[in-house]
Amino acid sequence: MASRRPRVIVVGAGFGGLTAARRLARYPVDVTVIDRKNHHTFQPLLYQVATTVLSPGQIAYPIRRIFRGRSNVEVILGDVTAIDLARRTVEVAGAPRAYDYLVVATGSGHSYFGHPEWAELAPGLKTVEDAIEIRRRVLLAFELAERDAGAGGGPDTPGRAPAFVVVGGGPTGVELAGALADIARRAVARDFTRIDPMSARIVLIEAGPRILPAFPEDLSRRAADQLERLGVEIHTSSTVVGVEPGTVRTAERAFPAAVTLWAAGVAASPLSRQLGDVDRGGRVRVGADLSLPGHPEVFVIGDIAACPAPGGGLLPALGAVATQQGHAAAENIRRDVRGAARLPFHYTDKGNLATIGRRAAVAQFGRLHVSGFVAWLMWLLVHLLLLVGFRNRLAVLSDWAWAYLTSERSARLITGSTTLPGWNAGTRAPERRVGSRP
Amino acid sequence: MASRRPRVIVVGAGFGGLTAARRLARYPVDVTVIDRKNHHTFQPLLYQVATTVLSPGQIAYPIRRIFRGRSNVEVILGDVTAIDLARRTVEVAGAPRAYDYLVVATGSGHSYFGHPEWAELAPGLKTVEDAIEIRRRVLLAFELAERDAGAGGGPDTPGRAPAFVVVGGGPTGVELAGALADIARRAVARDFTRIDPMSARIVLIEAGPRILPAFPEDLSRRAADQLERLGVEIHTSSTVVGVEPGTVRTAERAFPAAVTLWAAGVAASPLSRQLGDVDRGGRVRVGADLSLPGHPEVFVIGDIAACPAPGGGLLPALGAVATQQGHAAAENIRRDVRGAARLPFHYTDKGNLATIGRRAAVAQFGRLHVSGFVAWLMWLLVHLLLLVGFRNRLAVLSDWAWAYLTSERSARLITGSTTLPGWNAGTRAPERRVGSRP
Repeated sequence: MASRRPRVIVVGAGFGGLTAARRLARYPVDVTVIDRKNHHTFQPLLYQVATTVLSPGQIAYPIRRIFRGRSNVEVILGDVTAIDLARRTVEVAGAPRAYDYLVVATGSGHSYFGHPEWAELAPGLKTVEDAIEIRRRVLLAFELAERDAGAGGGPDTPGRAPAFVVVGGGPTGVELAGALADIARRAVARDFTRIDPMSARIVLIEAGPRILPAFPEDLSRRAADQLERLGVEIHTSSTVVGVEPGTVRTAERAFPAAVTLWAAGVAASPLSRQLGDVDRGGRVRVGADLSLPGHPEVFVIGDIAACPAPGGGLLPALGAVATQQGHAAAENIRRDVRGAARLPFHYTDKGNLATIGRRAAVAQFGRLHVSGFVAWLMWLLVHLLLLVGFRNRLAVLSDWAWAYLTSERSARLITGSTTLPGWNAGTRAPERRVGSRP
Repeated sequence: MASRRPRVIVVGAGFGGLTAARRLARYPVDVTVIDRKNHHTFQPLLYQVATTVLSPGQIAYPIRRIFRGRSNVEVILGDVTAIDLARRTVEVAGAPRAYDYLVVATGSGHSYFGHPEWAELAPGLKTVEDAIEIRRRVLLAFELAERDAGAGGGPDTPGRAPAFVVVGGGPTGVELAGALADIARRAVARDFTRIDPMSARIVLIEAGPRILPAFPEDLSRRAADQLERLGVEIHTSSTVVGVEPGTVRTAERAFPAAVTLWAAGVAASPLSRQLGDVDRGGRVRVGADLSLPGHPEVFVIGDIAACPAPGGGLLPALGAVATQQGHAAAENIRRDVRGAARLPFHYTDKGNLATIGRRAAVAQFGRLHVSGFVAWLMWLLVHLLLLVGFRNRLAVLSDWAWAYLTSERSARLITGSTTLPGWNAGTRAPERRVGSRP
């Protein structure tokens, strides 16, 4: 039964949905936030959980806590399985919930280009569970290599460290590759006696002609230099055609891989299909005010929305875009409720950031291109400020300081199973040789 | 091939094994530490991970880091699947490893009294994974109750908070029950709109006549008082005869249970069967010097060892016992290597501690019995000092201060699946009524 105040349902508590909901909470509406997780995940720092710098709890914030005290906001943990645009209801756990306004912000997952079977072998990095799983596999690769090196007790060929392959040369792939190099060359370098982690091979594969394609060319080049200085092998203009246990194949060659990480390909949340007109990537075409054509009470924002970019094409699937859209959608709902005209959405590109290893980054703000240590400091600052919650900021800053000063990792836990797909008990780590470049 | 120095293999890096290995590292021996996990778990604080006060990483310490820099210690992540006493080898991942001395400290799990099928419904608390799983279920129970309360939009009977059952009135069960009450009455009390967590029913079932049977009677009584003041229902002289989804049965009655936790029954690690003479609980009978009768080079310590207690019976399965045994076994190996006589092991009972909720505890040191806030401070201090690693101490202290001052929980993450065994979409939380006592 609808209350006198409009009921706004926000589906998804990522950057887009959370921003919209926090704004809406200040207006004379009733808000229901629905997410399939109980926490908001600060995705830009997920790669640091995956590479043992941070603990999961430091970049995940319970949604209930964010809205505690807001009497007009209720939080529901649940999966929206269906949207009935005609009846204006969403279905959660078999029960319909009515809305006056709906904001769909369910985000995106990874696309494996028609090979969903690769997902098990090559996890992506979207959720805390993903990060924990990647962490598990990365640490395990070293552990199993150590265990299986010369178990008979005799001397063994030193240097059989595992090989890692990262697919996708965008910011996530670059950050993962750099962080993996940091783990191998520094964090665990002295921890093993039978293998030499310094000799771990780390490969980054990118289908396009350069890594960080969304960045200016000079910054792409600096990033590539910095990665190569960390010992990362970069293979551009290479498309992955096969992913098997222990191996990643491109058209030209095969890479041994104890662990393969997927940072390529965006696929919009499947809920998009319930919303009508979608593009090839599954993203929903929206109007200038971010609403669904024909359904002005339904807003679609974030990675799931196909929003035209000023220079042509679509706006990228970035947290910054989702955040601005969240503001705009909330504002337009407010205007609607008050009988005022809606505003068209305009994205303000505030720049781009990506870290490379523990001490470098590339940053672009408008015409300003920065790289190296200064860019890294900027990156730190921006992400600290963006983090939700004072206590998280303090904890993260403290962990960063610790990791930086001591090369220690605060979060080097392996939880769960101690097997890797494709690694048989007693078999060797995938073949690799120190310093062998094609 | 054995080196000139004796090779000591330590299996298990809990309190017993870790203590032994750290001691042995200082002696002229080569040490191999084998554990199926990459971290040492500080078990006394696991219940705080399960009840969202601490994060897993704060009470788990990577074994490699503990022994970093010790050139005579190697760490292997692996499962010991067989022990060949005649050949003096242990088998890990299909490969044999030779030892001159062996220390078996693989600990214990839970016994379900002939009902292994109860394990899935009623998890115990031995590992970080256990704690994370319990945390998941506890938080989920509140979330699902909120989601399913009045999803149709109409008003609903308030107060349908979930019911929790803890089986086992020893320190772990008491600590879990008190912490659950703290979550319901304080930490999440204001976070839900459709259910009232204050009315969650928390039941503690103990087979014996009183909780904390290993403590003096007056402290048992105080603990029971404190628990009841927190709203925990205590049922003593009650043996669990059935565990089903949503229900726990004793001979006299049935308790509704959204979540059931198991803190009863100790079962020695299965490896004990490879070591010969075991008692009814699977624990290995050892000599006065903690070695295996007939195999003086094999030491068995911790929960897996059946060690006679001065007053009769066996020493309890406590971390304090395992730690002292670890010292003793290492010392006896050292003496053996030097040709000196071994020493018989004597356990020094330094006392007992158990917390109840966030501000109380019971403590016994010899004749001194303390309860309430002072006991709680003692508990804090002892456990802080016992924690491995300075940084962990700092982090834990900081989390405790935060939790205490703000009623916040730092670690309220639900990761993994969002279903509970026995909870169907759309069904109600198990029946419960506020304030109904039998």
